[in-house]
Amino acid sequence: MSALFKTVSIVGLGLVGGSIAAGIKQRGLADQIAAFDSNKNSLSIGLEQGLIDKGCDSIVSAIDDADLIILAVPVLSIGATLSELKNTAAIITDVGSVKSPVVKAAKEVFGKMPGNFIPGHPIAGSEKHGVTAANPDLFERHKVILTPSANSDKSATDSVRKLWEALGAKVIEMTPDHHDLVFAQTSHLPHLLAYALVDMLSAQGESFEIFEYAAGGFRDFSRIAASEPVMWRDIFDANGEKVLPILDKYMDELSQIRTLIAEGKMKELETLFKRAKIARDHFSSINKPS
Amino acid sequence: MSALFKTVSIVGLGLVGGSIAAGIKQRGLADQIAAFDSNKNSLSIGLEQGLIDKGCDSIVSAIDDADLIILAVPVLSIGATLSELKNTAAIITDVGSVKSPVVKAAKEVFGKMPGNFIPGHPIAGSEKHGVTAANPDLFERHKVILTPSANSDKSATDSVRKLWEALGAKVIEMTPDHHDLVFAQTSHLPHLLAYALVDMLSAQGESFEIFEYAAGGFRDFSRIAASEPVMWRDIFDANGEKVLPILDKYMDELSQIRTLIAEGKMKELETLFKRAKIARDHFSSINKPS
Repeated sequence: MSALFKTVSIVGLGLVGGSIAAGIKQRGLADQIAAFDSNKNSLSIGLEQGLIDKGCDSIVSAIDDADLIILAVPVLSIGATLSELKNTAAIITDVGSVKSPVVKAAKEVFGKMPGNFIPGHPIAGSEKHGVTAANPDLFERHKVILTPSANSDKSATDSVRKLWEALGAKVIEMTPDHHDLVFAQTSHLPHLLAYALVDMLSAQGESFEIFEYAAGGFRDFSRIAASEPVMWRDIFDANGEKVLPILDKYMDELSQIRTLIAEGKMKELETLFKRAKIARDHFSSINKPS
Repeated sequence: MSALFKTVSIVGLGLVGGSIAAGIKQRGLADQIAAFDSNKNSLSIGLEQGLIDKGCDSIVSAIDDADLIILAVPVLSIGATLSELKNTAAIITDVGSVKSPVVKAAKEVFGKMPGNFIPGHPIAGSEKHGVTAANPDLFERHKVILTPSANSDKSATDSVRKLWEALGAKVIEMTPDHHDLVFAQTSHLPHLLAYALVDMLSAQGESFEIFEYAAGGFRDFSRIAASEPVMWRDIFDANGEKVLPILDKYMDELSQIRTLIAEGKMKELETLFKRAKIARDHFSSINKPS
């Protein structure tokens, strides 16, 4: 494929930043990739593995000459990072798991949402992290949400869209607020429930015996509790406003189920299970595991 | 392998009963397999596929000549089934997912726990069900819990153990009460949480859009909500006494996490996530997916 960009600058060379770099390199989507990471070791690895062309010791030097800047830093660091990008004309995008707080941070830094900043969220990850786990095909057949604003340059949105499509992703646009609501329900809440379950069980006296007998159901359920604690702490910090109401709703649902079991209302419990199975089977039918 | 039994009788030819039959046949562990199922079609399929030698139209005729009787019927039907086995000298075992209610039912039928009845629970399953999904290797490298009582014949326990070991399983003994407590925590509660999540999300107006964006975490978490609703209703009916206290404990844990997020206590939230990750990583290390 011919290059879409001259210089892509990646700020934050972890799993996601590194995988974007690897994907761009493999597909020849940019003439050059420059990167900054506060961890110099990540830059050394990126250079050694040929993921980037230039490891820079500051954000300012990394974005010099950039026509696209990708912020792949922790979601709560995006505001501070944006404050170093006030004078650039390059297109900016990010990969944060929440979007309203990123938009809010951008408005604080720039006074308004700048036309060249197109927030994004690739729905792809791994239990692994760090640049050593970089995978050029991480985004293949995955969705990427972009949340351009009324103020966004149309051509900037198009460029970011083209990058993700070239990396194999399907791009969908929605508002930041809608994004955060949907992901509070389908991603943030499930992670919270899994962390809570594993934490509670491990606090039981017989915890490790319990894990010994835990079967497939528990394995699947709890896999997401192995996710990166600091990243998830930040997601709940940033998206608490959306997570708390849906957590309340979930606790109401659990209370109702508790009542059905305590009162022996088994017909109603069966109806609920059947309804859930139908919904889950529908989900499976539209989301075949890749 | 030489035959361990002359005639094994299987009452209930679904996924588990059918897989036991298939495993016995494949390994030559019995001279003959007779089966009863209230669904005659299951018996026809079992005969056609060579899983059983004889499909019988009553429990009484199926257990004629048996030296081992395996009850692979729904857990709440075990009592009624046992009442037809009052005069047999054969070894009896079952595959129910709860054990105390089975022991209670046996005591009601027999007046005391009979020495020839060794309750069991193979920790293996599938989202599929029915005899058509029978798999001779379903139990390979899986655990099987046996819950013999003080009154159990030692030789009966040994025979049941040998069968499961010949099918590739690892056999562990514990009390019925301990079994039900452990599984309330590691299996029943996770299923309940998954059903509750999928049910709650599907009741949202935008449910199917939500499922569209749901990523891997949700897929893993919710897979168990595709389990068989009637079987799970019965498990909660039978084991509510053990499930409710652990559900209460879980709801307390969620309330605590809710408070941490609402009050912005992010250091504490991070500590909790880290504790859960360590426990989950330990679980992974002792339970490599097979």
